[in-house]
Amino acid sequence: MKIEMRHGAGGADTGALISDVFARHFENEVLGRMEDGAVLPRPEGGIVLTTDSFVVQPLQFPGGDIGRLAVCGTVNDLCCMGAVPKYLTAGFILEEGLDTALLETLVQSMARTAREAGVCIVAGDTKVVEGRGGLYINTAGVGVRPEGRQASAAGMRPGDALLLSGTLGDHHGTILAARMGLDTALESDCAPLSGMVEALYAAGVPVHAMRDVTRGGLATVLCELAEASGCAACIEEGAVPVSDAVRGLCGILGLDLFTMGNEGKLLLAVPEEDAARALEVIRRAPYGAQAARIGAVEAGAGVTLRTAIGGRRALSPLRGEGLPRIC
Amino acid sequence: MKIEMRHGAGGADTGALISDVFARHFENEVLGRMEDGAVLPRPEGGIVLTTDSFVVQPLQFPGGDIGRLAVCGTVNDLCCMGAVPKYLTAGFILEEGLDTALLETLVQSMARTAREAGVCIVAGDTKVVEGRGGLYINTAGVGVRPEGRQASAAGMRPGDALLLSGTLGDHHGTILAARMGLDTALESDCAPLSGMVEALYAAGVPVHAMRDVTRGGLATVLCELAEASGCAACIEEGAVPVSDAVRGLCGILGLDLFTMGNEGKLLLAVPEEDAARALEVIRRAPYGAQAARIGAVEAGAGVTLRTAIGGRRALSPLRGEGLPRIC
Repeated sequence: MKIEMRHGAGGADTGALISDVFARHFENEVLGRMEDGAVLPRPEGGIVLTTDSFVVQPLQFPGGDIGRLAVCGTVNDLCCMGAVPKYLTAGFILEEGLDTALLETLVQSMARTAREAGVCIVAGDTKVVEGRGGLYINTAGVGVRPEGRQASAAGMRPGDALLLSGTLGDHHGTILAARMGLDTALESDCAPLSGMVEALYAAGVPVHAMRDVTRGGLATVLCELAEASGCAACIEEGAVPVSDAVRGLCGILGLDLFTMGNEGKLLLAVPEEDAARALEVIRRAPYGAQAARIGAVEAGAGVTLRTAIGGRRALSPLRGEGLPRIC
Repeated sequence: MKIEMRHGAGGADTGALISDVFARHFENEVLGRMEDGAVLPRPEGGIVLTTDSFVVQPLQFPGGDIGRLAVCGTVNDLCCMGAVPKYLTAGFILEEGLDTALLETLVQSMARTAREAGVCIVAGDTKVVEGRGGLYINTAGVGVRPEGRQASAAGMRPGDALLLSGTLGDHHGTILAARMGLDTALESDCAPLSGMVEALYAAGVPVHAMRDVTRGGLATVLCELAEASGCAACIEEGAVPVSDAVRGLCGILGLDLFTMGNEGKLLLAVPEEDAARALEVIRRAPYGAQAARIGAVEAGAGVTLRTAIGGRRALSPLRGEGLPRIC
């Protein structure tokens, strides 16, 4: 069956789509009440709210799909605020002609990823627009931040160690290769980081700043954190983990690894004395096996890369379009 | 300036768009921290979460625009859950070629409507896709429901009076006329209903069920409430408020008033003994001047319309597409 305009008109056909596809896979007690909104259990801690829209093309790719991405992106934003992700809303904008079997596959992937990340999808909305069989997904997320957690973009301090939870560029490279029809060994790193972040807090690591490395890449994220914190950062090119497949793609296409987007990587600033222990915790956590210490926070301003051959270059935030629609 | 793909790439150009357009108009303390999510003050009451995407065409129309609609739709869903709307997220999917002056006008309209409704826009996201200069907006909303409020789709009881807060069909008729290039006196009823709902609670009206009459129209909403509550509903055609302009459009185009969508109308079920007082409260509240008692809840099942000439017909939920992209 293909999606038609009638599926978005808010009548019986919208109702059937919701019960046949969405409610079936997202089943939980709160959503089951089928009201216009979800009443949430009273939280223990501060409430954190975030949102992200997902427009990636293609809809499915090695290592993930737009559904998994839509859960991970919002879950990871909550994690980076020090919150435990709890509830998601899901807003679907479907294009006419979308195959409902594909829609169901994507919805199943969302449901599976939500279970993995420990979140419930408690409210949703569906619209249909003209188009070519694609879809967009918005998720908004509510997390609960236990008392005492203070991770903030402005929390880096000179002397902090900078840790990266794994290889750079995998998601970006995967989408680019898929668009170009290249046959590669690349796989997206799209993953929920809630397990990793909770492991860090459980181990008592005093995280100063934490951000998932998404659109704009490591260069953009590091520049943002450095500016917000009033510090400089220096990273070692040779210390940054990168897969052979991504390194190869960068070489062939002349891509800048440091502005490539990822969807399952964490950048952290932690006090020097906690760095070794934090790295060990991350490496034992889901999706953290290849974590590395990549540099340090310094007094001053700006972000510097020390290259493998001993040079220095300034890293700037991504300018121009990078690769459109990677998330 | 026109929106280009670079505005959605997550780097410096995205940052400039956010600070120049979004942050400037949505300014508030929580959003001002520019983190990946918003930390909310601790709520006093139950938390209600909802989401809605908006894809209306045209983007601007008599009585409103997609920005005002994106605030009202989510605010009204929260109101109908008995919650006081507090916080919104805003996810923008911009099409390449969108005029940034138009974007700013729409963002200003969102900001103005948010102020009117008493909500803060505390988190956002921007993506850019190929297209023809349009945009989609998702809003998710968080409201706080004071202890003791119980409005629910399943709360109607036989003997309840059914109240409608004003004329039917205005938004639907306006969008349809705009698409057909008709010159009419129609204006969308797009409005936040938070003032009206709070006035009802302040007056101590024991609301049994409440729903905003949007996509699918009064027929769909009444059928949903009747089914959820295990009751029947009967409404009087002659009692339903409708403007001359909408009545005229329905006559010319053969539209069914009862499946036309609205964006600022409330349907309520209240105990018979409270009906007159509730009606008075609504009529004095913003956007409620033309409220009317339109029928009653009965034992049984299904929704019946008693026509002006004394006949009876069953109302069913909207089937087929109605009018696409009215919200």
